[in-house]
Amino acid sequence: MNFHTRKWVRPEDLNANGTLFGGSLLRWIDEEAAIYAIIQLGNYRCVTKYISEINFEASAEQGDLIEMGLVATHFGRTSMTMRAVVRNMITRRTILSIEKIVFVSLGDEGIPEPHGYSTITYARDRMPTTHPKTGTIAVPTAGEERR
Amino acid sequence: MNFHTRKWVRPEDLNANGTLFGGSLLRWIDEEAAIYAIIQLGNYRCVTKYISEINFEASAEQGDLIEMGLVATHFGRTSMTMRAVVRNMITRRTILSIEKIVFVSLGDEGIPEPHGYSTITYARDRMPTTHPKTGTIAVPTAGEERR
Amino acid sequence: MNFHTRKWVRPEDLNANGTLFGGSLLRWIDEEAAIYAIIQLGNYRCVTKYISEINFEASAEQGDLIEMGLVATHFGRTSMTMRAVVRNMITRRTILSIEKIVFVSLGDEGIPEPHGYSTITYARDRMPTTHPKTGTIAVPTAGEERR
Amino acid sequence: MNFHTRKWVRPEDLNANGTLFGGSLLRWIDEEAAIYAIIQLGNYRCVTKYISEINFEASAEQGDLIEMGLVATHFGRTSMTMRAVVRNMITRRTILSIEKIVFVSLGDEGIPEPHGYSTITYARDRMPTTHPKTGTIAVPTAGEERR
Amino acid sequence: MNFHTRKWVRPEDLNANGTLFGGSLLRWIDEEAAIYAIIQLGNYRCVTKYISEINFEASAEQGDLIEMGLVATHFGRTSMTMRAVVRNMITRRTILSIEKIVFVSLGDEGIPEPHGYSTITYARDRMPTTHPKTGTIAVPTAGEERR
Amino acid sequence: MNFHTRKWVRPEDLNANGTLFGGSLLRWIDEEAAIYAIIQLGNYRCVTKYISEINFEASAEQGDLIEMGLVATHFGRTSMTMRAVVRNMITRRTILSIEKIVFVSLGDEGIPEPHGYSTITYARDRMPTTHPKTGTIAVPTAGEERR
Repeated sequence: MNFHTRKWVRPEDLNANGTLFGGSLLRWIDEEAAIYAIIQLGNYRCVTKYISEINFEASAEQGDLIEMGLVATHFGRTSMTMRAVVRNMITRRTILSIEKIVFVSLGDEGIPEPHGYSTITYARDRMPTTHPKTGTIAVPTAGEERR
Repeated sequence: MNFHTRKWVRPEDLNANGTLFGGSLLRWIDEEAAIYAIIQLGNYRCVTKYISEINFEASAEQGDLIEMGLVATHFGRTSMTMRAVVRNMITRRTILSIEKIVFVSLGDEGIPEPHGYSTITYARDRMPTTHPKTGTIAVPTAGEERR
Repeated sequence: MNFHTRKWVRPEDLNANGTLFGGSLLRWIDEEAAIYAIIQLGNYRCVTKYISEINFEASAEQGDLIEMGLVATHFGRTSMTMRAVVRNMITRRTILSIEKIVFVSLGDEGIPEPHGYSTITYARDRMPTTHPKTGTIAVPTAGEERR
Repeated sequence: MNFHTRKWVRPEDLNANGTLFGGSLLRWIDEEAAIYAIIQLGNYRCVTKYISEINFEASAEQGDLIEMGLVATHFGRTSMTMRAVVRNMITRRTILSIEKIVFVSLGDEGIPEPHGYSTITYARDRMPTTHPKTGTIAVPTAGEERR
Repeated sequence: MNFHTRKWVRPEDLNANGTLFGGSLLRWIDEEAAIYAIIQLGNYRCVTKYISEINFEASAEQGDLIEMGLVATHFGRTSMTMRAVVRNMITRRTILSIEKIVFVSLGDEGIPEPHGYSTITYARDRMPTTHPKTGTIAVPTAGEERR
Repeated sequence: MNFHTRKWVRPEDLNANGTLFGGSLLRWIDEEAAIYAIIQLGNYRCVTKYISEINFEASAEQGDLIEMGLVATHFGRTSMTMRAVVRNMITRRTILSIEKIVFVSLGDEGIPEPHGYSTITYARDRMPTTHPKTGTIAVPTAGEERR
């Protein structure tokens, strides 16, 4: 399992008790899982379909550093399953772990669509090469002059 | 089950596909569950301990109206279990349902503490009457003059 | 008057004095009033037109629970008037009340349009059944497989 | 009346109709009024007490530029009254105007306290010179080395 | 140099140390610079191209008042250069200054486009008069009735 | 250089032109740099002191995936210098790069304090082991029962 995205717990992430708001944590995981799914399935239109039980083993406080890890555990015909772990970077203790997060790959009509993959990739060979909204090929807007 | 809090899906709640971001949805539920737990357990220091599996049955779009319902299903010694449903107010179709959300009541040291309740209340007879941070009795700051 | 949406005052809702930021409170009311107006007028395109004077009777602190109540008091040809109350769920004291919030129902061109209602509804019989943006009939995106 | 703070309407400020969310607008005004009151009353502990009726004369869209103007119109013993105008910088048309916004100056106990001023200042001669939280004299944290 | 937009440092703007989060500060400056560029170049499609070195000379705390000043220092063919200063309104000490912020004026295709200006304007004579998204002439949505 | 944190560009991150808001980007970098500095210097109280020139080479759109990389390039007595790169995960093109970001390690009084390190660590051997606010040793709040 690779750990990528990190968070620094700031006042806006706290609940009214002054500890990490569970809702912020869930939002971070969902975003990280979406990114992971897009890389694996090569499709921008990946949506959360299922999350297995979540056990909040430890909390976190303002100033703590958090990291999130994900690994693909199963490829279905139109879906993909991941395992997720969130841990405190100081103590290395697990804050929570989720056995199964399922994302589904959608087609243009918003209907599940076969993605054609059955194994995990560690490269970025499946990444979409067009922009999600416009469908145009991804090229940066070039500025030309500067002082 | 009573439905209280409602949300109007705005651009800031969308994922990059233009549908409701799952992370926003999970944040809303966690906040609503915390409020429900505080009312039932009469303690501001209630934290999320466990969430059972979540099945995203339907999505939502910008402009949709969402409502969240909760009901207590079990009272433990220091914890409380709820069932949650989120649905689209238009179609009345369920967006997701969660069989068990467990909150734990903490004491001043952040350690689980018995709450003393074993049944649901529909009144507000257990609500804390002091402010969570200062411990002072809840009285509004009174202004005295106005034009 | 029915009280629906509830808020748990978190650090992000505080002003620099550590009490509830008036601006957050006004934002919450405006969203709740929009939801109420959409239900009563059966139209997603409802916009705030007028708010009568607001007297901030009491404040709130981090961790407080807030609830908002609304009731329709008048139906115009293209508009609707509501009364709003925000109160602290602990003390049940009123934080603020607003005698008149007027929303206007707009047509596709953004011009006020007659809504055809003259009485309050307690059901959801007037709710729009198409999505606000696309105009397509509201059906959930169905996922098909899961592990 | 002087216009200071400006806003660029971004997607996060829109309601579900794609026009400027009234709640965002009210939040911006409340913050700007608090800043103005602190400058006039020389006290960080200024809170919103009263807002007179608000008429939304025009809307705004994504990308519009908004500016807010304020002027003190009355000084009470513990309070101060302002007039506010929000306008579209392009059309110069007024988006809304508020005849009276009243802020109250609070003492350490959160009780209204006489501020001792009866006229408007155009300088910054009344500004507090200690930090609001710590009460220490305002000096920047100095870094000492850099590459 | 004129100082326009002001900010009141609230809990959501703090880093985990309880001082002003550098990232919030940078976001505020970028928005203010975009507004300034739109006014000078008469084009909504202005994007940040370059920011010269930033020296954080002083910090700020919750409750501090911050003001931002900008002045155009050079007009290129498709670009414009500004100088920026952010200071604490209390101590008047500079929090940071940036010698050069370059914005580029883009055409409909997202390609840099000549703007035709070579001197600063203190009026609003160059402001765009159409809405950025729709291209329609800027007219407010008019409400017609109110109670 | 290691790339850790990733972002999925959502509507709330866009400017009024519909491309990635430069201010959001700067905020993300500043947070990631703070996390990196805390790991290298073993101190929660690390603040941004200096950022060298930033050249925005390419933009990004809604739905794009962004990754941020950092590497320590110099250790001063109380400071540390990093190099930063932000790139689009699809095209692998650089969005921006920053030659020098300097963070300073502060002591309890908010004054720069020697950190004692002169080389980069790839382990987490310098991480603080106490919580930043309370100074207590980092132990999770343990829940005891669950259903």
